[in-house]
Amino acid sequence: MSKHSEKFMLEAISLSKENIKNATGGPFGAVIVKDGEIISGGSNQVTTHNDPTAHAEIEAIRAACKKLKSFSLEGCEIYTSCEPCPMCLSAIYWARIESIYFANSREDAAELNFDDEFLYREINKENHNRKIPMVQMLRDEAIKVFNDWKHKEDKIHY
Amino acid sequence: MSKHSEKFMLEAISLSKENIKNATGGPFGAVIVKDGEIISGGSNQVTTHNDPTAHAEIEAIRAACKKLKSFSLEGCEIYTSCEPCPMCLSAIYWARIESIYFANSREDAAELNFDDEFLYREINKENHNRKIPMVQMLRDEAIKVFNDWKHKEDKIHY
Repeated sequence: MSKHSEKFMLEAISLSKENIKNATGGPFGAVIVKDGEIISGGSNQVTTHNDPTAHAEIEAIRAACKKLKSFSLEGCEIYTSCEPCPMCLSAIYWARIESIYFANSREDAAELNFDDEFLYREINKENHNRKIPMVQMLRDEAIKVFNDWKHKEDKIHY
Repeated sequence: MSKHSEKFMLEAISLSKENIKNATGGPFGAVIVKDGEIISGGSNQVTTHNDPTAHAEIEAIRAACKKLKSFSLEGCEIYTSCEPCPMCLSAIYWARIESIYFANSREDAAELNFDDEFLYREINKENHNRKIPMVQMLRDEAIKVFNDWKHKEDKIHY
């Protein structure tokens, strides 16, 4: 953990607080840190941007990637005012962030009627047991495209 | 399932195919359908947009929400050329999409070295057993903001 970690978390919490104050979204904030410096921040913008994916962590990841002109945040840490939901946790993995610091827990979020804890349970279920029905179809058509990808020589791995 | 469901899936697969052909990203495409009409489409743009969250489903969700000027896609279905990763599956829940149709499976994606299956296993683990370390800190500070939210009267639920 960086020696400035408390400072970074306080900034994430401050973003969450400002977000309520300005009525721009839910009580969530996050910052991305690289080499001991904050390179981006984000707060929940779901209702402001009409974007259900605009959680604080996702906003911070997008901003950091834009700044670094890279889809990889290797060498970065994320400080988030609340334990990431499964969407944000997965995004953190896809972005190759290396450490996660969080303050409030998913149980704290559940107390406010946010669905994070419910989502963790849903994702762990078999497809046919989930609340949203999932149907597989036309795999024979789609697998042809996967085979094309497999044999493509100039693809960019990500 | 809508009577036009095969048509919708073929469109999602076509987007995935075009994406390889145009070298704009991975072999994934998705469309959102409302009232029997495609209202948006997306393909994987991770490497093109330098955005690790720009999976086909997320792109399609963002575009549909923009079109409907709403953070809710109630009454919508998603057709995706591959079983959603946990990030996209969670986004589908947050967006309140009502049905999911997919073609290739997460095992098919794993064959191409995409991490979807690995991510499903990671998310199911306890925080301290995951590959990316997670540390809780300053919860006493952050919970104050959650309490502020709890008592805020004019908040928008999402």
